[in-house]
Formats: sequence, C-alpha cells, structure tokens
Amino acid sequence: MRIVILGTGNLATQLGMAFHAQHAEIIQVYGRSGACASDLANLLGCIFTTSKLEISTDADLYILAVSEAAITEVLSDAPIRNRLIVHTSGSISIDILATFSNNYGVFYPLQTLSKQKAVDFSAVPICIEANSAENLEKLSRLAKTISDQVFEIDSTQRRQLHLAAVFVCNFVNHFYAIGEKLLQEQKLDYNLIKPLILETASKATLFSPPEVQTGPAVRENQTIMKQHLKMLEQHPEWQELYALISKDISRFHQV
Amino acid sequence: MRIVILGTGNLATQLGMAFHAQHAEIIQVYGRSGACASDLANLLGCIFTTSKLEISTDADLYILAVSEAAITEVLSDAPIRNRLIVHTSGSISIDILATFSNNYGVFYPLQTLSKQKAVDFSAVPICIEANSAENLEKLSRLAKTISDQVFEIDSTQRRQLHLAAVFVCNFVNHFYAIGEKLLQEQKLDYNLIKPLILETASKATLFSPPEVQTGPAVRENQTIMKQHLKMLEQHPEWQELYALISKDISRFHQV
Repeated sequence: MRIVILGTGNLATQLGMAFHAQHAEIIQVYGRSGACASDLANLLGCIFTTSKLEISTDADLYILAVSEAAITEVLSDAPIRNRLIVHTSGSISIDILATFSNNYGVFYPLQTLSKQKAVDFSAVPICIEANSAENLEKLSRLAKTISDQVFEIDSTQRRQLHLAAVFVCNFVNHFYAIGEKLLQEQKLDYNLIKPLILETASKATLFSPPEVQTGPAVRENQTIMKQHLKMLEQHPEWQELYALISKDISRFHQV
Repeated sequence: MRIVILGTGNLATQLGMAFHAQHAEIIQVYGRSGACASDLANLLGCIFTTSKLEISTDADLYILAVSEAAITEVLSDAPIRNRLIVHTSGSISIDILATFSNNYGVFYPLQTLSKQKAVDFSAVPICIEANSAENLEKLSRLAKTISDQVFEIDSTQRRQLHLAAVFVCNFVNHFYAIGEKLLQEQKLDYNLIKPLILETASKATLFSPPEVQTGPAVRENQTIMKQHLKMLEQHPEWQELYALISKDISRFHQV
C-alpha cells in the first residue's frame, strides 16, 4: 500500500513514523512549510512537496493529518481522483470527504500527541470508518499493522468519543496545570503530587470512576470546601470552577 | 514504638496494614463500630475497643485516622496524656492538637485511598509536621519504614497541597466519570479511553502540564467547541463546565 501523508504536525509525524517502523511504503509528504515537510520526509525516507498540484496521483492511500479547517482546503486543489482518502479528526464527519473521492474513510487514533513524546501506537485505539466494506477492510488491515486495538466507530460515535476525550484528557491536563501552579505558590515541588496523579488514573482503569470518587465534595464536607474557596480568593476563575465542579460531584452522586 | 490507631476507615486500614507489614507494634484499634474495629484489629493482630475511656494510656504514638469533624470529639474523652498524637488530615492545622497533648504532629499520606484497592505506600509521599524537633524525628523514622518519600511540610503548605490534590485527583476523577457516562450514551466501551487517561497522566509526570496541553480550547478552535457545547445540550451542568474550563484554558495560555 503506497501512502501519501498530507500534513507535517504531531499526528502526521507520529503516525508516519509508526507506519515507517512497520515498513509501510510512504512515498510522499505534503506540507505548506518546506522545512517541516523536508524534515518529515527525511525521517520517513521519501520525497516531499509544498505544492498541492505536485501531490502524487498514484498512491493507494492519502492520509490527511491537517487541522480540521485545512481538510477541504488541501483537497480542493490536490489532483487526487477517486483514490482512498482518510482524515484523522475526531469531530469531523466522514461525509466531508464525499465530494473529493468515491473512496474515503476516517483513521482516528484516540490519543494525545505532543512533539515532546513519542507514542507507542500498539496500545492506541484506532477508530476507523469507511464508505464501503472494501475500504473499511483496507483501513482495518493497515491499522492492525500499528495497533492491537482497532475499532469500527461511526461519525456520531466518534465525535462523542472526542468530546469525552476533551474531558478526560484536555480538561484533566488543565487541572494538572492548576495543581502545579497552586504548589508553586507555596514553594512546593510539583513532584509531590505525581504519585497521586498516577494512582488516580490507574484506579480509573480498574474501577468505574464514580465508585472510587473521594474528596470533600462527595463527602459533602462543607467546612473543607469553604476553606478551599477562601484559599482560592486570588484566583476567582478557579474559585468559580471549584464551586461548580463540587456542586456537580454532589449532584452526580445523589442521582 | 507502640502504636494505637484511632479510626477504622480506609486510611486507618491501609496505614495500619502498611505498618503491620513492617512489623510495627500496633497494640490497639479504637473505633465506634465494634464490627469495624474488630475486623481491623484482627488484620493487625491486636486488641480493639469501642470505648474512648478504654483507649490504652501507654502507647508511644496515637494515630488519628478519623474524619476531620471527629478529631476533637475522639480526643476530648480519650485518656491520652502528653503522649505523641498525630492527625492525618490534609486540611486541618497541627494546632488543633495543642490542647490535648504536649507532643503532637501530623502524618499525612498524600494519596487517594479506597476500600477497593490496596495502595503501595513505598511510593506515597508522607507529609510530616511536629511540635518539636524530637517528635519530628520520631515521625520521620516511622514514615521512612513505609515510604521512600518523606517530607517536612507545614500546615499552610499542607492545606495548599490538599487543595491541589482536589483538582488533580477528585476533580479529575469526576471528569473520568463524565467521560464514562458520555461514552455509555453512544454505546461506546469505557475501555476505549483508558489508554488516553493513562497517557495523559504519564505525560504530566514527564513534562510541565501547560507544555503538553492539547485540544480545541488551547488551539482556540471555536468550531469544535461550539459543536461540543451543542452536543452537551442534554447536560446543562456539563455544558457550563465545558464553557468555563475552555475559557480558563484559553486565559491560562494567553498570560
């Protein structure tokens, strides 16, 4: 399967490297920035282009790993006709690709990717969807070369999955950031709460989260909650968050 | 060191078992419920009592592992005179113990404890504080028998640590609960997001969290955020949370 990667960001890089490690035939990288496209092409041992018109026309699969906004922009000018095209977005429907090809699908790795850390794809769930059984089978075979967890997920489910991911990953990480900041204010080492962060995550993989909820809100400990709200007086935004989330924990556990 | 444990909840149980495994001499358990006190005493190979007046008077250390509200209640009637007493609360000042003994301190393990899961204390930070250098040294020696991470933390720092813990543990776990619920609504398996939960936590131990923040809010992707808010119409509380946290992520990363 000859693959063209469209995009040069975190996802393009990490996905490209995962395929490359499995000896997939990546033939070209497209990117707006010549430096980024060249870097990734070097990593993957292939050619690159910065011109949409020069995107190879004879690949078996085109993987769009660009921002949601750029999907149609890239495809409008690319000379790809009826080859298999997939996007990699959690929140965009498969239908966006229908005007560009008769063969299309989605290849969505459910993981948080950063430049700073290479991800082991073997444990990353890959959510696939396609416009035909044949294309689904192609994507499934490809996905299984890099991951043990491949799932057929439709567009409605996938956007819900992405919404859940925002809560359990993006919002959670922001709370780690708030925790780090609060510790810094009392000259406390952020390392102190790392075991707590890891144990909390580990427990969420062993139990249903509501079963292991701890803390002042679920215990309805008003004294501690009032103390915490007072301590947050210098951070009105976090005070508001604290009150709202505590109320929601209480509501959730009363239902 | 002869130890009496006051309390029979999660912390009393797990702390007692950690000490017991290190051959500490636990001589008695006190609890209001005879069944709970008896169970724990059996685990620890010691006697128990449900009467405050029968609490042993000749131990070297009394560990209060009861709810914040019960600390003074238990101590008011217990015949403990000038023996070393410690409480185990993140949010209560050491000073609360001053009226009950000339020797007192705090022994606060920074971890989330549930009945469902035994904790490996060796990686749990133990925050200690005492009213004298001598008592601090005693607590330090004891703490080091069960944990590699023992820190002297004063009451002001400790309550800030507890506040940070509410964000990175209790609030985070609630977001895991929200994620699970959102997946259930689309008949999606909660297992799907477990790798994401673990990777997000793991990254927070390798990097400063703001450096690895991902998602629509930090990218200022209004289209996706609007879509998510619309998807949350059936959950007005979570819609409000989503909007507030996204705004805070944006504010945090603009400063």
